Amino acid sequence: MAKPLKLAEDRLLPAEPRVREIARALYAGVKDLPIVSPHGHTDPAWFAGNEPFANATDLLLAPDHYLFRMLYSQGLPLEKLGVSSRQGPSKANPREAWRILARNFHLFRGTPSYMWLNHVFAELFGFDVRLDETTADFYFDTIGEKLATDAFRPRALFDRFRIDCLATTEGPSDTLEHHKTIRASGWQGNVVTAYRPDAVIDAEHEDFAASIQRFAELTGENIYSWSGYLAAHRARRSFFISMGATSSDHGHPNAETLDLSDIAAEKLFSKIVSGAFAPVEAQEFRAQMLTEMAKMSLDDGLVMQLHPGSFRNHNRWLHGAFGRDKGADIPTQTDYVRALKPFLDRFGNETRLSLILFTLDETAYARELAPLAGHYPILKLGPAWWFHDSPEGMRRFREQTTETAGFYNTVGFNDDTRAFLSIPARHDMARRVDCGFLARLVAEHRMEEDEACEVAMDLAHNLVKRAYKLDQPAAKAA
Amino acid sequence: MAKPLKLAEDRLLPAEPRVREIARALYAGVKDLPIVSPHGHTDPAWFAGNEPFANATDLLLAPDHYLFRMLYSQGLPLEKLGVSSRQGPSKANPREAWRILARNFHLFRGTPSYMWLNHVFAELFGFDVRLDETTADFYFDTIGEKLATDAFRPRALFDRFRIDCLATTEGPSDTLEHHKTIRASGWQGNVVTAYRPDAVIDAEHEDFAASIQRFAELTGENIYSWSGYLAAHRARRSFFISMGATSSDHGHPNAETLDLSDIAAEKLFSKIVSGAFAPVEAQEFRAQMLTEMAKMSLDDGLVMQLHPGSFRNHNRWLHGAFGRDKGADIPTQTDYVRALKPFLDRFGNETRLSLILFTLDETAYARELAPLAGHYPILKLGPAWWFHDSPEGMRRFREQTTETAGFYNTVGFNDDTRAFLSIPARHDMARRVDCGFLARLVAEHRMEEDEACEVAMDLAHNLVKRAYKLDQPAAKAA
Amino acid sequence: MAKPLKLAEDRLLPAEPRVREIARALYAGVKDLPIVSPHGHTDPAWFAGNEPFANATDLLLAPDHYLFRMLYSQGLPLEKLGVSSRQGPSKANPREAWRILARNFHLFRGTPSYMWLNHVFAELFGFDVRLDETTADFYFDTIGEKLATDAFRPRALFDRFRIDCLATTEGPSDTLEHHKTIRASGWQGNVVTAYRPDAVIDAEHEDFAASIQRFAELTGENIYSWSGYLAAHRARRSFFISMGATSSDHGHPNAETLDLSDIAAEKLFSKIVSGAFAPVEAQEFRAQMLTEMAKMSLDDGLVMQLHPGSFRNHNRWLHGAFGRDKGADIPTQTDYVRALKPFLDRFGNETRLSLILFTLDETAYARELAPLAGHYPILKLGPAWWFHDSPEGMRRFREQTTETAGFYNTVGFNDDTRAFLSIPARHDMARRVDCGFLARLVAEHRMEEDEACEVAMDLAHNLVKRAYKLDQPAAKAA
Repeated sequence: MAKPLKLAEDRLLPAEPRVREIARALYAGVKDLPIVSPHGHTDPAWFAGNEPFANATDLLLAPDHYLFRMLYSQGLPLEKLGVSSRQGPSKANPREAWRILARNFHLFRGTPSYMWLNHVFAELFGFDVRLDETTADFYFDTIGEKLATDAFRPRALFDRFRIDCLATTEGPSDTLEHHKTIRASGWQGNVVTAYRPDAVIDAEHEDFAASIQRFAELTGENIYSWSGYLAAHRARRSFFISMGATSSDHGHPNAETLDLSDIAAEKLFSKIVSGAFAPVEAQEFRAQMLTEMAKMSLDDGLVMQLHPGSFRNHNRWLHGAFGRDKGADIPTQTDYVRALKPFLDRFGNETRLSLILFTLDETAYARELAPLAGHYPILKLGPAWWFHDSPEGMRRFREQTTETAGFYNTVGFNDDTRAFLSIPARHDMARRVDCGFLARLVAEHRMEEDEACEVAMDLAHNLVKRAYKLDQPAAKAA
Repeated sequence: MAKPLKLAEDRLLPAEPRVREIARALYAGVKDLPIVSPHGHTDPAWFAGNEPFANATDLLLAPDHYLFRMLYSQGLPLEKLGVSSRQGPSKANPREAWRILARNFHLFRGTPSYMWLNHVFAELFGFDVRLDETTADFYFDTIGEKLATDAFRPRALFDRFRIDCLATTEGPSDTLEHHKTIRASGWQGNVVTAYRPDAVIDAEHEDFAASIQRFAELTGENIYSWSGYLAAHRARRSFFISMGATSSDHGHPNAETLDLSDIAAEKLFSKIVSGAFAPVEAQEFRAQMLTEMAKMSLDDGLVMQLHPGSFRNHNRWLHGAFGRDKGADIPTQTDYVRALKPFLDRFGNETRLSLILFTLDETAYARELAPLAGHYPILKLGPAWWFHDSPEGMRRFREQTTETAGFYNTVGFNDDTRAFLSIPARHDMARRVDCGFLARLVAEHRMEEDEACEVAMDLAHNLVKRAYKLDQPAAKAA
Repeated sequence: MAKPLKLAEDRLLPAEPRVREIARALYAGVKDLPIVSPHGHTDPAWFAGNEPFANATDLLLAPDHYLFRMLYSQGLPLEKLGVSSRQGPSKANPREAWRILARNFHLFRGTPSYMWLNHVFAELFGFDVRLDETTADFYFDTIGEKLATDAFRPRALFDRFRIDCLATTEGPSDTLEHHKTIRASGWQGNVVTAYRPDAVIDAEHEDFAASIQRFAELTGENIYSWSGYLAAHRARRSFFISMGATSSDHGHPNAETLDLSDIAAEKLFSKIVSGAFAPVEAQEFRAQMLTEMAKMSLDDGLVMQLHPGSFRNHNRWLHGAFGRDKGADIPTQTDYVRALKPFLDRFGNETRLSLILFTLDETAYARELAPLAGHYPILKLGPAWWFHDSPEGMRRFREQTTETAGFYNTVGFNDDTRAFLSIPARHDMARRVDCGFLARLVAEHRMEEDEACEVAMDLAHNLVKRAYKLDQPAAKAA
């Protein structure tokens, strides 16, 4: 017999009755605030085309590396889960793939994915029985039917989710056609882009040469000269800003920065574009480009984000067979204190510029990131990221950063997801966990309830709008 | 006046009444499950000979480095505590040594040893007053009397403890005579061995040459050739399997692995056996041997365990005077992401093989170990180990691994102890702490109670049997 | 309308009613114990001259880098906050500076500074409304008026705070005139010094040459010879001891130690004083000097403290403009296991000597520091330090050190502050957090209440007196 599925009203709030009571009151003040999603990886094509999503597997399982990595870790082959490979789309039957998820759904107990999916199942699709082997087909069919209705098209969901603003992330060689289509469509949904130039900065990326080539074509700049390369960046940033971008984003293997002289930077660049560079030079170039991006931000106002510390494509065989972003990126230890010094020596005291720092290495929270952000005007702390975007992870983030950096050097929540349907669940989780943290401070008389109420609103809404300049008229950001 | 000693029924369960109520219900379902102890350091001679244990000091204090290291840290000399040295057995009067422990027992407040010992005192020996200066002799006498009775002989205790299976750990040059005796005795206790070849792999071990020599004698292989050396391992593994082994165990200073060509491996080996090697070569050889062991495991089915990251014999003087395992091993920072890459590049996607990872560096839990185990089919996470085998340590383990790796990439509990009498106390502690963790998830509506109930059973029993292949007929494991 | 300010009686105690009840009982036993402050940075001139403090800004804001670093991180310039620079005292109007703090006081929500200041405001100055924009002037005026009264002079406050002993920290070239004045004054306040020789040991310190020169003048030793240099240290230590010192203190960039032969040490020293040294030699000299200090401690009995791991003056521009100690020191990752080995190889088993270890890298608590202190007789653990001197930081310290090192290898609390008025608030916070931690152990039946009561007293009073030899007649320490 199928087991009941019901989202508890008090989920994720602390168990102690008095603390829960306070948390409930704080949460009541923020639960209906519109969603601001300043950084994520949804596909703008969804909102441009507004085509219905296909089926449960294609929408919820096959693109979600949080899900298929766990199944894979237990010996289930990716090709059976609908995951595309270098050979192209999966040949798996979507219903069969879904059954595998259903049969193994217990593996996700205690993970945030379990809560996000159950939120989607109950709230969005109206299920009142749990997903398991016996309900797999019922789920697959019901989801399929609903997705075929207009109410489940991307724009309808966007509106239903009450999203105030959603940023996607695009590379510099992206034409932003979908963003243009969205803007031209008359639909009021606020979908903006963000400038993520890794593909033309990371010379060790497998597609670097092709990306550079495309970058040249798009901009018409002599991209093989240092000044032309920089001009191309400036041109694309300006175009991205015209498509709503207020931020750039940088995904680097570490947090290294450099501040070379123009001559040294030019010399380094010429090696990089020649293709004849050593790994250390690729590293230096990424480090130097953070400085170059900051110089441009001083002119055009883009807020910078740094996402360092992922060892990408750790699984050699899987990378060969299935390609990137297949759940095989592993965090590494990340230094900030020495790595950021060249950048901070130049820009640390800038009040016109913002660098939002993320980490996959939680040991940096109390030791490095909170002390840095609690001192340098340019620095803010991004929320608990990726593997740490979870109830315990968010709690550790607050417990380990607040006492040194306070709440006001943080920037609210990022869902950072490509799983569009999970966005409300993710923001809801963050709000609940933050309210639970604040409620404990109140119950321990470390903060008054009226103060916690203000902070809860700031964490859920105000800080993110301010930090990402989403509270300003678009023109001003540009 | 002596103070009362009483084990509280709810010990180690969370204080909040509703959470405690749930934890109590979960614990009720697992508390009487038989003990599965897949990795530890008890002495098989106890069960072979079934001789009575001598006295409180010789049984409980002198061999337990958790205890005498703490006393030593407060200035109490090891020679007074019954600890043997390079000069041989201690000349301390056991009763005097016991009095020192009793007088200083307050030093252990807040440590797991305090709870383990009190569990043993109350449950096994029936004490209802606490150990302190005034009760030292009463304790010493009572324990001595009980140990002299048949009910306290090793086999009787083994049966009383309801141990389903107990694995000891032996080196490759061990003849496993005690295991043979146990098997021949007709006693039904399931005591198996595990293959720990460090002594013939770690060329920096002080007894390496002697161990290799003995390894050669035992196997009759030309052990100074690479193929003979490997054949010797295969022969001993096979013999260990015939004595019940289902796992090998590897205690290395770090988690480095290598995957050399046969020629390179042979060349490295010849340097190692010649004795003329650099430290880096000893390191490379240990790293390569993990790969060699995995190759053998593919054939013979032994589950691999890696226990890295202990700086052995850190105290130079103490090592000189008292020898190894005297409480002077100190954890070090341990990298897994880069260290395991060569091994994972070769075996990471193997579903027929298991490598169970341990750590003394908790910073790796959320950053490296959970992401690795939540992706690679070959990897599982061993429980909180050694210094972290404690209520807070276990809680951190669950809080920092579950959200990324789930519960099902972990392998239940290991007591990993030579303190035989503490085995029930240790398993009980693990069950209570896990139930407390699960109860919080239930109370915060992150999991349903029926799910938590299943997980609790899996953590206490099913996962360990599956991970160590103890749920299979012995022949199958072999 | 101004919001009410009231210190809750149960502040910082755990929220769960039963745990709180136990915590309250434990706290009742320690809250009125006199303050022992064995390490800090108050100015002995205050107690020598006993002049009234000037105003709220000069006393509470301008010298407190915890406060102005947070304001600076949010873009507020130091020169407006009354902070002195290399150009001399700030020209800011103290009242205006205070208004900035008041207007931005919400930035400190969730930080220990918020609680310390509110404690001072409510307890010491009697405020019953909160500090904010509307009450800024009221606060400034009221504080100013009170400071002008005799009851708020330094010695009166010292007595009112019930300080049993307060250690300041001075460099070897300090004449300790203020300490002499205090002693000659007849006032009974027990203010002692501590020997902090960094300025004549850290050859990379900007004032090294000048400090050495002054060191020579003061001691009359031929300080440019190794034996003269060591003799000068011995002489100053002896003088410091005559001014009550029971400890030396060493603030190093890392925990590296060395144990060179006399010849090698002399050779290294000659390079250092010549000024022609490489960074690695400056590093080696600091490392060696810990060993030299220990040798002297064996003779004169000074307890050693090591405060490693701060990257001083990380903000280049700020250091140039405002100088040292301006909130720009950032913690770095710190190794102890390898770094301390040379020192421990020589002195680790000494029971006559104490080295109290601190850290800014919390990852070392469970991995390195607790295992080291739980074994080596010479080692003790200092309390949670600086950025970690906070409710969550103290809780992590206990949770991560107790299970391996116990309570009795720790040394109670250090306020380590130059913010004199906050001393009672800081000790009170530590007592409350420790009682809360102990209460959880009691509620989880991991310790009996009578035991927790003893431990609470030890943590609040006995351990610090013993560890710093403040329980001995001064002569004995010498």
